[in-house]
Amino acid sequence: MQELPIVRIPAPLLQRQFASVLQEHGFTPDRAEQCAAIFAANSLDGVYTHGVNRFPRFVEYIKKGFVKPDAVPVLKSAFGGIEQWDGLLGPGPLNAVHATERVMELARAHGIGCVALSNTNHWMRGGTYGWQAAKAGFVFIGWTNTIANMPAWGAKDSRLGNNPLIFALPFREEAIVLDAAMSQYSFGAMEMAQLKEEQLSIYGGYDTNGRLTTDPAAILKSRRPLPIGYWKGAGLALLLDLLAVILSGGLSTAQISSKEVEYGLSQVFIAIDITKLPNHSAIPSMLEGIISDYLQSIPENDKSRIAYPGERVLQTRGENQRLGIPVVRQVYDQVFGK
Amino acid sequence: MQELPIVRIPAPLLQRQFASVLQEHGFTPDRAEQCAAIFAANSLDGVYTHGVNRFPRFVEYIKKGFVKPDAVPVLKSAFGGIEQWDGLLGPGPLNAVHATERVMELARAHGIGCVALSNTNHWMRGGTYGWQAAKAGFVFIGWTNTIANMPAWGAKDSRLGNNPLIFALPFREEAIVLDAAMSQYSFGAMEMAQLKEEQLSIYGGYDTNGRLTTDPAAILKSRRPLPIGYWKGAGLALLLDLLAVILSGGLSTAQISSKEVEYGLSQVFIAIDITKLPNHSAIPSMLEGIISDYLQSIPENDKSRIAYPGERVLQTRGENQRLGIPVVRQVYDQVFGK
Repeated sequence: MQELPIVRIPAPLLQRQFASVLQEHGFTPDRAEQCAAIFAANSLDGVYTHGVNRFPRFVEYIKKGFVKPDAVPVLKSAFGGIEQWDGLLGPGPLNAVHATERVMELARAHGIGCVALSNTNHWMRGGTYGWQAAKAGFVFIGWTNTIANMPAWGAKDSRLGNNPLIFALPFREEAIVLDAAMSQYSFGAMEMAQLKEEQLSIYGGYDTNGRLTTDPAAILKSRRPLPIGYWKGAGLALLLDLLAVILSGGLSTAQISSKEVEYGLSQVFIAIDITKLPNHSAIPSMLEGIISDYLQSIPENDKSRIAYPGERVLQTRGENQRLGIPVVRQVYDQVFGK
Repeated sequence: MQELPIVRIPAPLLQRQFASVLQEHGFTPDRAEQCAAIFAANSLDGVYTHGVNRFPRFVEYIKKGFVKPDAVPVLKSAFGGIEQWDGLLGPGPLNAVHATERVMELARAHGIGCVALSNTNHWMRGGTYGWQAAKAGFVFIGWTNTIANMPAWGAKDSRLGNNPLIFALPFREEAIVLDAAMSQYSFGAMEMAQLKEEQLSIYGGYDTNGRLTTDPAAILKSRRPLPIGYWKGAGLALLLDLLAVILSGGLSTAQISSKEVEYGLSQVFIAIDITKLPNHSAIPSMLEGIISDYLQSIPENDKSRIAYPGERVLQTRGENQRLGIPVVRQVYDQVFGK
């Protein structure tokens, strides 16, 4: 196990740097600020793999023309609560924020809404949009497809994306947010474990000999991560791709994978306006009842700590606000151009 | 490994017997026929644990008054595409068919609809409603809560349900249907493996010493099945319960678990009318493109067979139509009252 050299950067400083770099690469000041805020918030919440660590690649994709700084989604079709939008290869996080805002408007009008987005780009952390909708008072279900990075069940070659699925709902002043890729570990998490020379806590995939392993380097080499629930996660990943494609009219994982890098994704955003339910005022106490029972679970051992999805994020957020965001030295140098 | 004595029963004969037993227990002829058809279809599709094997318990719950044969859901509230219905403790399969029909009507009117059902009963196989909606041309997302039967991640005692989640969409003349409980194996599957003295193919849970095991008897004893994707499936199960409860205004897993047996469940049915999309006529070829790529996966070994969710069901259905439904002798005796 190896400790990586870390620098603690205050979130506002990191965000200013992101915004400044984005403006240098063709973002208007407003859009640079909005996009920088998302990268900073993801880092603040501890999702470094889709925050500060990913920022250099985001900039690279802008430079190469895969991400269009000034593209804004356009409406392709609408019927009642469902709409299709074309993301025109704009910045993934800005397109996704736009789609989330729009699906909340649809939910306000129709109780439930669905926005399907084609030709968009990596949204970074899917949980961002779950938090956005849930903090505005909505139930949220959303997913994205990705480049092929996971084999079908029983297969050796990757033809599925690990297509993250997000469920979120308002809770207290914050939210309960589940953001689950269909692979047991994200590639970002495995790369980080490799860098730190750590083993994964459970099997994360296969080595090149087809044996289950906890060694991140072996899995990164074989490109065979394990789907969550084995055949179940592989099946879910296929369904999420099929649905994203038919609902948005956009590209499939197979089509995205035929390109040089991952761009032009298909995404789905569903929101439900729970203020339209007659039991709305009772919802907070219903949630407290369930969470209170859940937290009374008997821990397996002294080290176990029972938490609901999103609970640990609040702790990390607080810690990073107090101490600054921990940034790996090498990443810091890339982002700040040292 | 032990071969259980099996009798092959033609589906129509099995269905007639189900209907006859249900009529004896207070079902009208029409409702007995509809419910019997679902139990027979689940058996025909190879889902015996939620078909013929489960029928005796279904009858027992009717006798004990947990399932009300003549109860029909009533509308509690409506706004745009969302509706809440009270299942009045009617038969789970009939209530769920009703909710699926209703959510398709909402989707026809609003593009997308959501029906949340409280006070209902075990719907048997969730895939039934996925097939129902998908064969009628709709995208379907649905889930149910259950009695507590799975621990939170890091916990020893069961406070989560294994809350099956269903995704379905039309494909060719049939459907692609994923029906995944949040535990790696259903209790029905583990009981069947125990009866046959078989080991599970992968870890299915923990033994009473807290060690991962493939022994179904050890897991049935510890009551600690493994969630799909470990912490991810446990998190998903919690979210599905929270959402089912707030959307339906019904009972939570914790509340259901305080009763003598599992009844009074909360369920969610979401449908999208894809005929309202401008790319509707292109959808079949989009699906063929994805499935064709998927099926070109390189099998891991000679025994591997790559299939999409729902594909094997069609084979089993064909075989069981030809040869009759394989029923364990002991179950046959219970169902036919021998």
